[in-house]
Amino acid sequence: MDSIAYVNGSFVPLSEAKVSVLDRGFLFADGIYEVAAVLDGKLIDNASHLARLERSVGEIALKLPETVARIIEIQKELITRNKLVSGLVYLQVTRGADTGRDFAFPKSGVKSSLVMFVSEKEIVDAPSAKTGVGVITVPDIRWERRDIKSVALLAQVLAKQAAAEAGAAEAWMLEDGFVTEGGSSSAFILTQDDVIVTRQNSNAILPGCTRKAVVALAEERQLRVEERPFTVAEAVAAKEAFITSASVFVQPVVTIDGKTVGTGKPGPMATRLREIYVDFAKATAS
Amino acid sequence: MDSIAYVNGSFVPLSEAKVSVLDRGFLFADGIYEVAAVLDGKLIDNASHLARLERSVGEIALKLPETVARIIEIQKELITRNKLVSGLVYLQVTRGADTGRDFAFPKSGVKSSLVMFVSEKEIVDAPSAKTGVGVITVPDIRWERRDIKSVALLAQVLAKQAAAEAGAAEAWMLEDGFVTEGGSSSAFILTQDDVIVTRQNSNAILPGCTRKAVVALAEERQLRVEERPFTVAEAVAAKEAFITSASVFVQPVVTIDGKTVGTGKPGPMATRLREIYVDFAKATAS
Repeated sequence: MDSIAYVNGSFVPLSEAKVSVLDRGFLFADGIYEVAAVLDGKLIDNASHLARLERSVGEIALKLPETVARIIEIQKELITRNKLVSGLVYLQVTRGADTGRDFAFPKSGVKSSLVMFVSEKEIVDAPSAKTGVGVITVPDIRWERRDIKSVALLAQVLAKQAAAEAGAAEAWMLEDGFVTEGGSSSAFILTQDDVIVTRQNSNAILPGCTRKAVVALAEERQLRVEERPFTVAEAVAAKEAFITSASVFVQPVVTIDGKTVGTGKPGPMATRLREIYVDFAKATAS
Repeated sequence: MDSIAYVNGSFVPLSEAKVSVLDRGFLFADGIYEVAAVLDGKLIDNASHLARLERSVGEIALKLPETVARIIEIQKELITRNKLVSGLVYLQVTRGADTGRDFAFPKSGVKSSLVMFVSEKEIVDAPSAKTGVGVITVPDIRWERRDIKSVALLAQVLAKQAAAEAGAAEAWMLEDGFVTEGGSSSAFILTQDDVIVTRQNSNAILPGCTRKAVVALAEERQLRVEERPFTVAEAVAAKEAFITSASVFVQPVVTIDGKTVGTGKPGPMATRLREIYVDFAKATAS
């Protein structure tokens, strides 16, 4: 059934949700996006996503067309209108549609575009959380400002298509011999001496909201966490590997380029962190 | 006045030309574009642009939704419908709109989108050809497949906005101490011993159609051309500098980061190559 989307002030059926061909999101990838999970009809870790949205738009001098308070209202109205229980709320802000096509920012009077829509997805009871998933590795060919959550995602599209063709769920991107992150998730390993390792934030990766929450939750529980780069060899030799994102929470990785990680089954740490994150998500949903 | 655009099979007023918010051009920058100049109502160097289009879509496994012959028909129909004498025909192909948002390619049955529109522009008698333009330099932060003419243009948007804010017409992007190219043009210098220098094609730059034609036209006239990288210092110390693109043809550069190049006025070589290119354009227009 057709869901209800939001486009620049109007709630419309998704099949009729359109933007101008002059929208700078379409012509130049001149836009920012965020995806927040929904459980039991409530938004998960949403303040973290909206804080990152504000940071991203600031980095490219893009003005939000609505206040964050209004954006939250729209998110909630979309959940209500679509009777969404479990899934995702997607939002994208672009530098709007000018009267023509010019790389430089529009002079003035061009309002940013705001597009939002929802999708249903079973996140907590996803089968892949019980079986684990495979990842492949690809070169990280992206630009140098990966900390900005822009819609210039062609490199990630190609990486995740390569993964899909290989029967894998995610592609880990490699730069200078180290894993940066997944095409749409953060990468973690658990070393043989029980240290949780994930790459430190920098311009080389997106500052993952779920990554941030999982690191904080682990540290609160006195688990050892190191934020540093790791190699594929280290990941294959690790006790466990897993990925985090708003749309999968914590998901065990059981193979990397076809090589088994650990026992080849979801390990106790990934399983535990997943449970801890789900508890946190439900307890703080808004 | 509203011009006529083409969107997926229909000719519509540009103000009503829209695509789905699920179009992968909008969500993922999963698309390719081309811009061809129009003089006297005819397309300039169009075969070269369409050959590059076919190469670009091939590099990202994107299927053109129409034959190249049909695309040419649409280009010409847009020129006719808009009574376009001098200007540009823009075309963009994307991987279409699926029923949801998934990074990997749509399974099947999703047709690529084709969007085209025109803009009026005086190219031959542009005032900037007589005065020359200024360029600034910025770090080249783009991805590693700049040979693909994708719509993932956010880095170029930021570069050209920085140029606009500095009162310059273009931004030259620097990598490892060398100029790669401009935000939307190819970069050339003329050395003190009269060698035309422009960077060789590779994944580091877009293979410019106007660049290619200018190099060929220069070589036909026994002018010395070297395809190799050059530094900003070399450019500032050069006899002349200039840029090429479909929308400016050959344009003299008279300052780089505020430093005067040559006499500070368009030099004889840039002026001559511009004349040669205009003659070529008019003689081969189709």
